[in-house]
Amino acid sequence: MFKISATYTDLYQLRMAQAYFKNNKHEQTAVFDYYFRKNPFEGGYTIFAGLEDLLQKLKNLQFSKEDISFLKTQNFPDDFLDYLEKFRFHGKIFSVMEGDVIFPNRPTLRVEGTLIEAQLIETIVLNLLNFQSLIATKARRMRFIAGNRSLLDFGLRRAQGPGGYYASRAAFIGGFDGTSNVIAGEDFNIPISGTMAHSFVQSYDNELESFRDFAIQLPKKCVLLVDTYNTLKSGIPNAIIVAKEMEARGEKLFAIRLDSGDLAYFAKESRKLLDAAGLHYVKIAASNQLDEYVIKSLQEQNAPIDIYGVGTNLVIGKPNGALDGVYKLAFSNGKPRIKISENLEKITLPHAKQVYRVTSEEGIWIGADVISLKTENHVTTMHHPFDPFKQMDIDSLKQEPLLKEVMGEGEIKIKLRTLSEIAEYSRERFAQLPLEYKRFYNPHQYKIGISTALKKEQEALIKSRKI
Amino acid sequence: MFKISATYTDLYQLRMAQAYFKNNKHEQTAVFDYYFRKNPFEGGYTIFAGLEDLLQKLKNLQFSKEDISFLKTQNFPDDFLDYLEKFRFHGKIFSVMEGDVIFPNRPTLRVEGTLIEAQLIETIVLNLLNFQSLIATKARRMRFIAGNRSLLDFGLRRAQGPGGYYASRAAFIGGFDGTSNVIAGEDFNIPISGTMAHSFVQSYDNELESFRDFAIQLPKKCVLLVDTYNTLKSGIPNAIIVAKEMEARGEKLFAIRLDSGDLAYFAKESRKLLDAAGLHYVKIAASNQLDEYVIKSLQEQNAPIDIYGVGTNLVIGKPNGALDGVYKLAFSNGKPRIKISENLEKITLPHAKQVYRVTSEEGIWIGADVISLKTENHVTTMHHPFDPFKQMDIDSLKQEPLLKEVMGEGEIKIKLRTLSEIAEYSRERFAQLPLEYKRFYNPHQYKIGISTALKKEQEALIKSRKI
Repeated sequence: MFKISATYTDLYQLRMAQAYFKNNKHEQTAVFDYYFRKNPFEGGYTIFAGLEDLLQKLKNLQFSKEDISFLKTQNFPDDFLDYLEKFRFHGKIFSVMEGDVIFPNRPTLRVEGTLIEAQLIETIVLNLLNFQSLIATKARRMRFIAGNRSLLDFGLRRAQGPGGYYASRAAFIGGFDGTSNVIAGEDFNIPISGTMAHSFVQSYDNELESFRDFAIQLPKKCVLLVDTYNTLKSGIPNAIIVAKEMEARGEKLFAIRLDSGDLAYFAKESRKLLDAAGLHYVKIAASNQLDEYVIKSLQEQNAPIDIYGVGTNLVIGKPNGALDGVYKLAFSNGKPRIKISENLEKITLPHAKQVYRVTSEEGIWIGADVISLKTENHVTTMHHPFDPFKQMDIDSLKQEPLLKEVMGEGEIKIKLRTLSEIAEYSRERFAQLPLEYKRFYNPHQYKIGISTALKKEQEALIKSRKI
Repeated sequence: MFKISATYTDLYQLRMAQAYFKNNKHEQTAVFDYYFRKNPFEGGYTIFAGLEDLLQKLKNLQFSKEDISFLKTQNFPDDFLDYLEKFRFHGKIFSVMEGDVIFPNRPTLRVEGTLIEAQLIETIVLNLLNFQSLIATKARRMRFIAGNRSLLDFGLRRAQGPGGYYASRAAFIGGFDGTSNVIAGEDFNIPISGTMAHSFVQSYDNELESFRDFAIQLPKKCVLLVDTYNTLKSGIPNAIIVAKEMEARGEKLFAIRLDSGDLAYFAKESRKLLDAAGLHYVKIAASNQLDEYVIKSLQEQNAPIDIYGVGTNLVIGKPNGALDGVYKLAFSNGKPRIKISENLEKITLPHAKQVYRVTSEEGIWIGADVISLKTENHVTTMHHPFDPFKQMDIDSLKQEPLLKEVMGEGEIKIKLRTLSEIAEYSRERFAQLPLEYKRFYNPHQYKIGISTALKKEQEALIKSRKI
């Protein structure tokens, strides 16, 4: 739908780049880590989304002539603007695969490049990954509870403007079956679905006539919205009449949709009326302020709902609204770098690093990832990141490296997958996560450890920085 | 930044359009109302934003060849696709002016056109107006409390993907002074600002050297970030050294920025150190999870902060995340239309309507808007929308019509304003709103009434629909 230009960034990236350039520091090598600090929704996991779209954006990232003209008005020196005009990202990116299950405080993505190029992509990395990971996670929580019932994204109207475009993409990765969002369907090959609004029914003098006209024109997967006037006294009876007329034509009404009131009650009563009319095959779709908790409650009440249409709470990732991803310098100009903080958990980890998911011999996830220097191929002991007395021997366990080279020399280094392939990969990875990390209330926390070598490097740097 | 195609919509709009077209109902006239049901943030008002951008999008709205090819794969009939290929919006739009103060349950915008064209624009209307009004309102709440201190939008990295583009636009309308978002600055002519991140400081072997290099390259409006290692023992002392060096060159350090810890405490201590060094003119900027409540608290503590940088909570409109705007059919094919609901407040108002802001003879807002039929030029009695015993004589009061023709025959009917002009208009309108509607806790509710004629029309329709 839209092209992202290199001015899709915060001004301070350009000001820092200018200072690096003018001080001749811009060609120094640098390593940045992207990670987040807290799983959203008080949950036990996050689904990583946005990567393959990001890579395509980075491959084509540049400043247009209009961008340069605009920047000229903002007091940038000419030689720096000449540099920006030719700018292309040629760094390396190592990343967790899109769709994987990720956890806080360990690198999800690592950028290696010149200081200037790694800095110039910070905002777009954060903007695209934070949001899509948030929404994929929200979607996954609903898929987890909805079992094999259909989940459809209806959120575009309440989305944060064009954020809705990526919300639909991320929701599909997180396990949704389709979207109402046509442009997302068109650009990302997501199945699209949609039927009628109240306005359709209202535009007729009577409800029956509106259902009849709609069914004649759209007999395939026809869904009738039954709550414009009175669900049980008007909507369902009229839907039954039309369903019978469809049967006489050799067609089948696909579903009715409830969009207000007590969905559990109306679904049960609607099911009874439909079944009494012999319409056991007609499905029930429900929408109206759904989220994972409402869906859980509906299912606990055995509400006979086959299709959930989810809008606002999905596409804005309510209640969090944002994933707190950050992008931190770990190495530059040949030296490890650290940011100190009063808050132990906010002290950064220096050096280019690798993250290993620790598993049993059979590949079963044991509930811990370990961060090492990127040069370590195997970690023997994992240490608690802050508590010096906690450590664990993992020498005998398998360790799956999570960060793989996905970009280098301006080219994407992996085979890009279809969105369905990413969604399927995500489903498989999520299946490996034990149940205790998936529950909504007070989930178990997936452990993080650091290798002995990394721990020593961090301690030495903290010591040298003590003021 | 991006072109919105007519497939930026929900599929059901196209399915309903198909049914209207095939049943030859599509040229019937229709009237839709856009309104919302609840002020966000438990506040007493909403700032209307998004309109002028929406009008430009509607003027150019069409299905591209690629869109039509895509829709061909989705089982749309050829004659309908031929129709869509030629589709342009030619209806009329009557609207509140962008930037005005608006309230729930009264039309903010009215669309009059053929049934099909009015239906086909629903999603884009909702998507653009809901979000921008949400953010402009959030921004206005911060401006209300921040007085004349600077407010800067730093949110792009945590925004909901490209939603950040419009968040910056809306924040400026709501009273922000600038943004870090370069593309928004470029496209909407918003002042942009930005300085340095922790990574800049970290990329040097010592903080002083990083400050010095930055100040040499960027002496104008130079802001030094002082909390990378230790604010009071390292950051501020180094900033003072550099400020003195700048003085020696005839330059002035503009500000220091705090981005962590207790901002009230660090601002006060930093101010003392700067003042003791004779640097009274150096401003203090603060960022880190700010919102209107944190800003209020900082000001109540007399924290000497001159510039607030606001990110996440602004650009995602936390905690709401969405404005609950709806788009409801009020008239079609020569007849008034209504949607009935168990919930009195969700019953819609039929007919094309006007909204008047009731004022004193001198133009002072008296705390009420009244909705009339569009054919009424003056309302004598305003009735409570649900309570039959509440009414008020407003015959002697002035009534300012809020809905003005902004689009017709495919053309924009108003002179488009610069974003600064819209922001200034918004400031002036907000100044007319009495204080009791502006407070954060339990604000007074701006009243709504309906005219006698509209009340009778609604009652007659409800009666005719009773089942």
